Amino acid sequence: MSEILQQHIARFVNVPNVDHAAIARFFQPLELKKKENLLTEGKVCHSNYFVEQGLLRMFFVNDKGVEQTIQFALENWWLADYTSFDNGKPSPYYIQAIEKSAVLAISRTAYDELLQQYPVMERYFRCIHQRAHAAAQFRIKSHYDLSGEEMYRQFSNLNPQFVQRIPQYLLASYLNMTPEYLSEIRSR
Amino acid sequence: MSEILQQHIARFVNVPNVDHAAIARFFQPLELKKKENLLTEGKVCHSNYFVEQGLLRMFFVNDKGVEQTIQFALENWWLADYTSFDNGKPSPYYIQAIEKSAVLAISRTAYDELLQQYPVMERYFRCIHQRAHAAAQFRIKSHYDLSGEEMYRQFSNLNPQFVQRIPQYLLASYLNMTPEYLSEIRSR
Repeated sequence: MSEILQQHIARFVNVPNVDHAAIARFFQPLELKKKENLLTEGKVCHSNYFVEQGLLRMFFVNDKGVEQTIQFALENWWLADYTSFDNGKPSPYYIQAIEKSAVLAISRTAYDELLQQYPVMERYFRCIHQRAHAAAQFRIKSHYDLSGEEMYRQFSNLNPQFVQRIPQYLLASYLNMTPEYLSEIRSR
Repeated sequence: MSEILQQHIARFVNVPNVDHAAIARFFQPLELKKKENLLTEGKVCHSNYFVEQGLLRMFFVNDKGVEQTIQFALENWWLADYTSFDNGKPSPYYIQAIEKSAVLAISRTAYDELLQQYPVMERYFRCIHQRAHAAAQFRIKSHYDLSGEEMYRQFSNLNPQFVQRIPQYLLASYLNMTPEYLSEIRSR
């Protein structure tokens, strides 16, 4: 396991006796080219992905055949379709590398075994999901509350590093606006 | 602790030696009248709430002074503003009983102590937040993907028990439509 995940775990699990070498066996390192898919529509999301380096996005193809991006993940973020990961049913999503990326994958089977053998990792994943749950509440509120322009301002204030790295057409898709309108907002 | 939470824990934590009596000490039972608030805007969300009986909603008051409902919780559901619960800052939300309700409250301090003393509860809350995270992903997808009418059909298919119990004007608020439009959809 890379030092990156090790440090991330140490942020949440403050115990000296975490056996990082043993835990590393549960993760598979993957190198992804730009635009390479980790998940495609109709397949089961068998793994949960931790971004060591690079940038991923999750999207679905809508009724009009357009790719609708709903989530990004950069360094130190986890990404999966957690419904499919949990129930083993086909996913409506794609997970794709926006940049050349290095990720650690943990399969559902390995995840269950890891938690069984190293219960301290329950704490780590409890923290990860609790924070993601909090972030999702905040995001759902924004959907009710903010205009497209306000969504952009909030997103760029909270995630300045994203706005530098994400291609404009993908950010526009995430914000549910046309690239032209995003460009207009940015030029103001 | 009531049998309701005990059974809910047993669904996720399949170990015979959970000391339910000891765990119960961390929770405070509360009886709520209809329309009683557990949280008001500007206050810190100090507790996480488990619904034993009844129905809660979380809402904020928007710029126009209108209550915007963003979440419901009925029996066996947890509800809190997890951002405020985590960072101790004031919440933008109200949490209110829609019906006369019985809830179990666990304060942030008690939560931290519970997890410290009974690490098996990490597993329980990891499962709760992982499922909530999955549900939030699904809901965010719906915001991009579905019309108001489709949102209503999906919501009533997935939560038939809600549709019976939630007053129409609150369901309309949650679905971000007027009560008149919801009534029109329902009469079709």
